[in-house]
Amino acid sequence: MAVRAAVAGASGYAGGEILRLLLAHPEVEIGALTGNSNAGERLGALQPHLPPLADRVLEPTTTEVLAGHDVVFLALPHGHSAAVAEALGDGVLVVDCGADFRLRDAAQWTRWYGTPHAGTWPYGLPELPGAREALRTTRRIAVPGCYPTAVTLALFPAFAAGLAEPEAVVVAASGTSGAGKAAKPHLLGSEVMGSMSPYGVGGAHRHTPEIAQNLAAVAGEKVTVSFTPTLAPMPRGILATCTARARAGVTADTLRESYAKALADEPFVHLLPEGQWPATGAVAGSNNALLQVALDEDAGRIVVVSAVDNLTKGTAGGALQSMNIALGLPEELGLPTTGVAP
Amino acid sequence: MAVRAAVAGASGYAGGEILRLLLAHPEVEIGALTGNSNAGERLGALQPHLPPLADRVLEPTTTEVLAGHDVVFLALPHGHSAAVAEALGDGVLVVDCGADFRLRDAAQWTRWYGTPHAGTWPYGLPELPGAREALRTTRRIAVPGCYPTAVTLALFPAFAAGLAEPEAVVVAASGTSGAGKAAKPHLLGSEVMGSMSPYGVGGAHRHTPEIAQNLAAVAGEKVTVSFTPTLAPMPRGILATCTARARAGVTADTLRESYAKALADEPFVHLLPEGQWPATGAVAGSNNALLQVALDEDAGRIVVVSAVDNLTKGTAGGALQSMNIALGLPEELGLPTTGVAP
Amino acid sequence: MAVRAAVAGASGYAGGEILRLLLAHPEVEIGALTGNSNAGERLGALQPHLPPLADRVLEPTTTEVLAGHDVVFLALPHGHSAAVAEALGDGVLVVDCGADFRLRDAAQWTRWYGTPHAGTWPYGLPELPGAREALRTTRRIAVPGCYPTAVTLALFPAFAAGLAEPEAVVVAASGTSGAGKAAKPHLLGSEVMGSMSPYGVGGAHRHTPEIAQNLAAVAGEKVTVSFTPTLAPMPRGILATCTARARAGVTADTLRESYAKALADEPFVHLLPEGQWPATGAVAGSNNALLQVALDEDAGRIVVVSAVDNLTKGTAGGALQSMNIALGLPEELGLPTTGVAP
Amino acid sequence: MAVRAAVAGASGYAGGEILRLLLAHPEVEIGALTGNSNAGERLGALQPHLPPLADRVLEPTTTEVLAGHDVVFLALPHGHSAAVAEALGDGVLVVDCGADFRLRDAAQWTRWYGTPHAGTWPYGLPELPGAREALRTTRRIAVPGCYPTAVTLALFPAFAAGLAEPEAVVVAASGTSGAGKAAKPHLLGSEVMGSMSPYGVGGAHRHTPEIAQNLAAVAGEKVTVSFTPTLAPMPRGILATCTARARAGVTADTLRESYAKALADEPFVHLLPEGQWPATGAVAGSNNALLQVALDEDAGRIVVVSAVDNLTKGTAGGALQSMNIALGLPEELGLPTTGVAP
Repeated sequence: MAVRAAVAGASGYAGGEILRLLLAHPEVEIGALTGNSNAGERLGALQPHLPPLADRVLEPTTTEVLAGHDVVFLALPHGHSAAVAEALGDGVLVVDCGADFRLRDAAQWTRWYGTPHAGTWPYGLPELPGAREALRTTRRIAVPGCYPTAVTLALFPAFAAGLAEPEAVVVAASGTSGAGKAAKPHLLGSEVMGSMSPYGVGGAHRHTPEIAQNLAAVAGEKVTVSFTPTLAPMPRGILATCTARARAGVTADTLRESYAKALADEPFVHLLPEGQWPATGAVAGSNNALLQVALDEDAGRIVVVSAVDNLTKGTAGGALQSMNIALGLPEELGLPTTGVAP
Repeated sequence: MAVRAAVAGASGYAGGEILRLLLAHPEVEIGALTGNSNAGERLGALQPHLPPLADRVLEPTTTEVLAGHDVVFLALPHGHSAAVAEALGDGVLVVDCGADFRLRDAAQWTRWYGTPHAGTWPYGLPELPGAREALRTTRRIAVPGCYPTAVTLALFPAFAAGLAEPEAVVVAASGTSGAGKAAKPHLLGSEVMGSMSPYGVGGAHRHTPEIAQNLAAVAGEKVTVSFTPTLAPMPRGILATCTARARAGVTADTLRESYAKALADEPFVHLLPEGQWPATGAVAGSNNALLQVALDEDAGRIVVVSAVDNLTKGTAGGALQSMNIALGLPEELGLPTTGVAP
Repeated sequence: MAVRAAVAGASGYAGGEILRLLLAHPEVEIGALTGNSNAGERLGALQPHLPPLADRVLEPTTTEVLAGHDVVFLALPHGHSAAVAEALGDGVLVVDCGADFRLRDAAQWTRWYGTPHAGTWPYGLPELPGAREALRTTRRIAVPGCYPTAVTLALFPAFAAGLAEPEAVVVAASGTSGAGKAAKPHLLGSEVMGSMSPYGVGGAHRHTPEIAQNLAAVAGEKVTVSFTPTLAPMPRGILATCTARARAGVTADTLRESYAKALADEPFVHLLPEGQWPATGAVAGSNNALLQVALDEDAGRIVVVSAVDNLTKGTAGGALQSMNIALGLPEELGLPTTGVAP
Repeated sequence: MAVRAAVAGASGYAGGEILRLLLAHPEVEIGALTGNSNAGERLGALQPHLPPLADRVLEPTTTEVLAGHDVVFLALPHGHSAAVAEALGDGVLVVDCGADFRLRDAAQWTRWYGTPHAGTWPYGLPELPGAREALRTTRRIAVPGCYPTAVTLALFPAFAAGLAEPEAVVVAASGTSGAGKAAKPHLLGSEVMGSMSPYGVGGAHRHTPEIAQNLAAVAGEKVTVSFTPTLAPMPRGILATCTARARAGVTADTLRESYAKALADEPFVHLLPEGQWPATGAVAGSNNALLQVALDEDAGRIVVVSAVDNLTKGTAGGALQSMNIALGLPEELGLPTTGVAP
């Protein structure tokens, strides 16, 4: 019997990617699709890459429309999820791609988002220690941010194994879809093609406390995170270059072995063979994360580079992977294990 | 019982795309993978977007290696298919992505390729009148070139309905993967990014006689084709702008109706609603072709624009679609109906 | 003594390019810079590539601000130039980058722009027969559109020499800066990178009558023009593929000789050696147009491909070249003769 | 009287950029152009963006050809400069864009390049303390690497002012032209468009010791450098994100003031106003470096981001700037102070 899924926010990039993946999921039937400013429009005009849904018409994002589904995906600006979830009730699996329920520390939430803390839901990054257990029994999932997905997958094995001092320096390049579909001058093709630029520099990006929270959880101590996101001239993908000071005695071999062991059973996270480095082009459209590690002995730092597709593993794919777990389905069901390359 | 498929030329772009699609095909089991200069290498180093096949090792392209499969895909330079097919025998379905068996006119073949004509195989463009019938009973398929796929799908309804004078003027923009994976200076990223350039101008591209052959077959008369291919700064996709002089009495309505009727039952070819134009970004990674038509009354010309992914519908997807027909499977089985966008 | 120049519309792409070129012009001193919604802002925030003007502040576009200059460049939406020019008086050289004074036929103007015809000014394409004479004595210049520049340069020698039947079929690919700096969803980097798409298909683009007017003037008869513009994933550049039916007796040699002769003395328009084709990457930032010609004997058509930078030769460079003529300066003074490549 | 300049290695990207800048330099006359595999070819076929030199023919790189010039630019693979310079004699200004004479420590040279140390020449980064003095009297210039230019300009004010602990963590994104014009599969447009990837990870890139040498010189103590270069989908530009642990007492204000003071008189290095961040698109084709600084108080780190054009300020522009100083010309003469954007 099919799982009926609704998508709130179906006109944006995250919503479109959720739909692309749901269409390929053998156990899901796509129900209501909602938008706000786009309610009443054909999906074909908004998401022309999804011909099977071209004649679907967006409905307004209301409880009435979203009710009656087994799963509801929320791809909304932050601040809206709590009310929707409460109205839908406990029987529905709510998968929130927004930030509202990611941070555990209420003070941190308020510092970064300026509103009262709504709470915390089980975190949709199954690869983190303990995450699968929490997802198995929940009706509420907080899908991680795209940067936190890339960075946490890159660094958690090092911190879990005690290989790194608790200070990470991360620079990540993201494709422009991470900035959303709202038309802003600095996101015009003319501006971004042929150009790299940073933003949220100096610890100003809201994904910073989420990354710090994840790393602290595995390290068992506070981890400072210097995080600089940059906008790259490509539509999709995150390349995260993550470094941390190596603890005494760490060797290239122990580093590599720790990662191999931590990731051995992961279906979507792949430690590449020595000498091969991840490229975002290889993960486009897939739920994979590709990783490589190095020990810089001169600088005394561990360097880990990860590549994910910000919309797939970084958002919609992570959401469906977590949904599969919460629904008792095979974790990999319906998720793309290959990238579209070149 | 699964169909066992081998791929000869698995290290190139066409081979990689065939593998990507075969991995998602529910009835196919992937057998031998061959390469020439790359024999002995791990596929993971050559096609890093295909982790499920990362540990496969390429074998040399020999009859021994290719024997014992139900289907053999050939993604080889032209001139090699005849010998391979003969050695494999009549029981094996041979799907040739090269040019060897596309042209019917031996003199044309020799003019354009400089070698004796090897023959003609059923043409793997199911949408052409009569094509499905021929594919259903064959063990040999000549997959169309990527440009001929885009142009023929755009113009065949007009010629089949007698709406156009027999002279087509076509300008098509292709992503760089159409030029293959061999490293050549003019294909470097530094050269192609931010730059459009033509090639094979003045009727010099080998896909020209193939396009003319297809259009003549539906028009029932010789059709001259002015074809200019251009290289666009994108990895995938063909946008073909196709025009032909409108016959007397053709109106915008009759034009549109002819296309709507000709394409009504096609699973992968979509005439867009009025006012919406195809973009290659919307078909990336999909087996779809998106079309739009217009009548330019001032110039007296029909204008049809089509968008396909050169590697999917233009090569590997068209190949699997034809394979499905030849094997008696549902034509759409396992083929991507959605693009990866943005 | 320096020429003082003002730029109205200094915050957009055309305005920015005019400023870039004026900064390198040895006889020009940059005076007032105006904007509308951006009045009061630092230019450094709007045009960060122009550090020498970073601390200039935009003023409102008023007659008071623009008065007192020798030259005023107008980079405004159409419909505003007539009033500004009248207010400035006959002593000022007004160089209009908008469409208002390009079309000679009042009925055509009204058909395409929906407003009464304002008149016609000398046309800023010096390479056209007779254009330099008209420019030498004028205080008013209508700078051509970017597509008409690329297409007219490509086809005028053929029509002037009577080599072509009066029907042209043109497909041109433009970089996204041609669509301006206003933020629109379909111009987002996420949408345009990796994607080609057409617009204004079927003869609906406003540059069509301008192209037809130019070609008719040199052909001495009406020329029908089928023109399809496409948006390419690059910030700058136009590649125009232009074809016309060859008149009887035209050979590849006569074609080539006609072009060589017509362009022999042109400082900025270069017929490439046989075998070399133009690429937009080679003209980026330069005032050059690169051309190549071919005769397609099978199709009976002349094919000419031209590459220009839409913002330089296609707008700002053409404007300064025409300004130089009108001011009695050397035509090439201060204009970039080299592209920025790769 | 004009300075006569020869360029050895005129067919590559560095050579092409040197020629582009020399063509715009009012005091330079371009003499011999040499290549190796390309000797005998027209420059127009190799550097189509330089029409004024299109008919020049490349000569072989020999002492005879290079003799008789006032300045000789070397854009050769490392290992060739010493012999050429010796043969040319002390009267000629030799400007070496290769690595041979950059490193002072012979052991470091041998560790990274595997050959005996050839010596050290005055370093062509005029902005470094003491550099202009050394350049004024030299006939030998070692032009810095592109990454060291971007990173040193970003970090030297912090280390010179004693604001940072001696450990830098740098991640830099480079356009593909930094990898040169030799055709390699991983540099194909199909591979690099839409994809970011790292290389030389873990301290393996040869620019690392050069960066460390520069920073140590201003810091007065050894500085460890964790440097990760990444390849970005753009032809030109470097965006360097540079961080270092802030020393006690450093505030955002002292940080900003130190940079403002250190860069106040620099003609090409611009500290942007607060709130504005550098983008490589804004420096394309210019000799500018754009910088912004931030203090991340949570992480305790200084973050400086710089944008340069790897071929201009990062190679050819830096070379001409240093040449100007060595020849006693105005330092800014003939150098582009504006970028080509968008």
